[in-house]
Amino acid sequence: MSDNSTCSSPMEELHPIFLHHLPSSFSVLLKTRLQAHFHVLDPCDSAEPVSSFLASHAHSVRALVCAVLTPLTAETLELFPSLHLLVGTSSGLDHVDLDYCRRRGITVTNASVAFAEDVADHAVTLLIDVLRRISAADRFVRSGSWPVKGDYPLGSKLRGRRVGIVGLGTIGFQTAKRLASLGCLISYTSRSKKPSASFAYYPDVLELASNSDALIVCCPLTQETYHIINEEVMRALGKRGVVVNVGRGPLIDEARMVELLVQGNLGGAGLDVFEHEPKVPKELFGLDNVVLSPHCAVITPESFQAVQDLTVNNLIAFFANKPLVSVVQFQ
Amino acid sequence: MSDNSTCSSPMEELHPIFLHHLPSSFSVLLKTRLQAHFHVLDPCDSAEPVSSFLASHAHSVRALVCAVLTPLTAETLELFPSLHLLVGTSSGLDHVDLDYCRRRGITVTNASVAFAEDVADHAVTLLIDVLRRISAADRFVRSGSWPVKGDYPLGSKLRGRRVGIVGLGTIGFQTAKRLASLGCLISYTSRSKKPSASFAYYPDVLELASNSDALIVCCPLTQETYHIINEEVMRALGKRGVVVNVGRGPLIDEARMVELLVQGNLGGAGLDVFEHEPKVPKELFGLDNVVLSPHCAVITPESFQAVQDLTVNNLIAFFANKPLVSVVQFQ
Repeated sequence: MSDNSTCSSPMEELHPIFLHHLPSSFSVLLKTRLQAHFHVLDPCDSAEPVSSFLASHAHSVRALVCAVLTPLTAETLELFPSLHLLVGTSSGLDHVDLDYCRRRGITVTNASVAFAEDVADHAVTLLIDVLRRISAADRFVRSGSWPVKGDYPLGSKLRGRRVGIVGLGTIGFQTAKRLASLGCLISYTSRSKKPSASFAYYPDVLELASNSDALIVCCPLTQETYHIINEEVMRALGKRGVVVNVGRGPLIDEARMVELLVQGNLGGAGLDVFEHEPKVPKELFGLDNVVLSPHCAVITPESFQAVQDLTVNNLIAFFANKPLVSVVQFQ
Repeated sequence: MSDNSTCSSPMEELHPIFLHHLPSSFSVLLKTRLQAHFHVLDPCDSAEPVSSFLASHAHSVRALVCAVLTPLTAETLELFPSLHLLVGTSSGLDHVDLDYCRRRGITVTNASVAFAEDVADHAVTLLIDVLRRISAADRFVRSGSWPVKGDYPLGSKLRGRRVGIVGLGTIGFQTAKRLASLGCLISYTSRSKKPSASFAYYPDVLELASNSDALIVCCPLTQETYHIINEEVMRALGKRGVVVNVGRGPLIDEARMVELLVQGNLGGAGLDVFEHEPKVPKELFGLDNVVLSPHCAVITPESFQAVQDLTVNNLIAFFANKPLVSVVQFQ
């Protein structure tokens, strides 16, 4: 959707929106973009203390943008009695009190559609990388081991692998589609069976793990999904099984995962997210069957552009009483 | 093709074949497999000097298996006056004097069909790895830089990238198919336009490079393709361009490539093969925009099984006067 045609209002008519953020290079870019369309209320711009800035402005705010992973509690949200729309700029919104939003009837949008392709590409690459030991091969070559040690250990083939998708949302579906086209056999678990998806559905993650060679974890983090990948699930996945996590760290019981990897009771892991970021368990640093990346699955200029477009377009639709682009469906 | 039904001949009736190899774990496995179907003549089994072994046996040999990358010169081939079939167990056969085979009318088979999927998966992963900096991200995390340095640099998106395939053979086609399904725009150069392929064709590699964001090099190494990726081609690919090589090292002018990478005049490289393996230019070891693997794109148990099946099936077809599975078309 192009938003150029809606930029023509004179300055005094711009709708006010509140920008909730910890200043970062991304939020600076986003703010500049938003200022072309809206009157952006940002406590960081004011000499006032935050509390008095909020006392002056929060009561009339109808739309709030929560940038990146800035925590947003019920206590803060209560300061915005007129709030109708909360625009998130991330895929997962576990940093926002969604229960409170649901109770208050605040509509929430997320940015999965802007990020899904990049996260899916990242998930696919982490899986192939673990199966084929590519990052480990790169270490092998850079360390000068090739002329000394000769043959590199066998990897394993992608085609024919049974891949279980944990959470068939926008990102899960993009990942499934890619891996299916690469010859993997896809099944999934999700809150409910998706009528539009032809992949095999398992209502239970344990059953999915028992029938999979690899799990791709990409569901939202909620009270229900915390540690959804527990020791039992990982043991069901087995000694040759691979777990890839592009969701949130606490979806996996990380301490148990590390133990199973170190003991050789889990085959490998491709991890973009961790339970206590940016802290990563040091035991993983010595393992060649894991690939680690610093929560960067969405970090491309194209994604940054797409999430800015999406944020602006959701806000424009809201103020024009048109359908929003990416509404979060509460459970 | 199953070969079980053809194993029933008594020992004395087995067709003789010659195994030309440097002993390796793979050639041991292959030999065991061949011995179930053929009388395998292997100088390594004999107490005789190789020359007298050849003098006794070579004259009657009709089929020879050349294992892995064991060099096979015209001088050696001349010792086999009855040779009709040379079965290669690799994709590229630049270690075999193919000109001599062509002149002598010796039919040659290669193993591209057994390896194509694994090599294509490897090529795709090298490309995404370079674009998204995944191996570099793994180094970043393992070195403990994440908590210290914070944000990881932006990668770039795969979808929409213009990818030029250099050599649309079995491997090139599998690679093109995968990247097309991941949203890349595919074009190719090849000795001739492929009527069955719908991708854009450029007769000239320089023109292909000028119209591509990345090149995947997967053509055979011949006198004509030596250094096909020269400085001019890499400069046409440009400062943000990426070259991926899963063919043979000497397809790229490696010294020029290293210079261009170090100067920032080439965007990145994903390299499974090198000009003087296992020697890799040390200048590459310090670069985060290159991913290096030790000629291991085909190394999976599934590929090893597939190449053994293919070797046996080509030989069975030959002795039964049936069509061969993977004949090399001479230029």
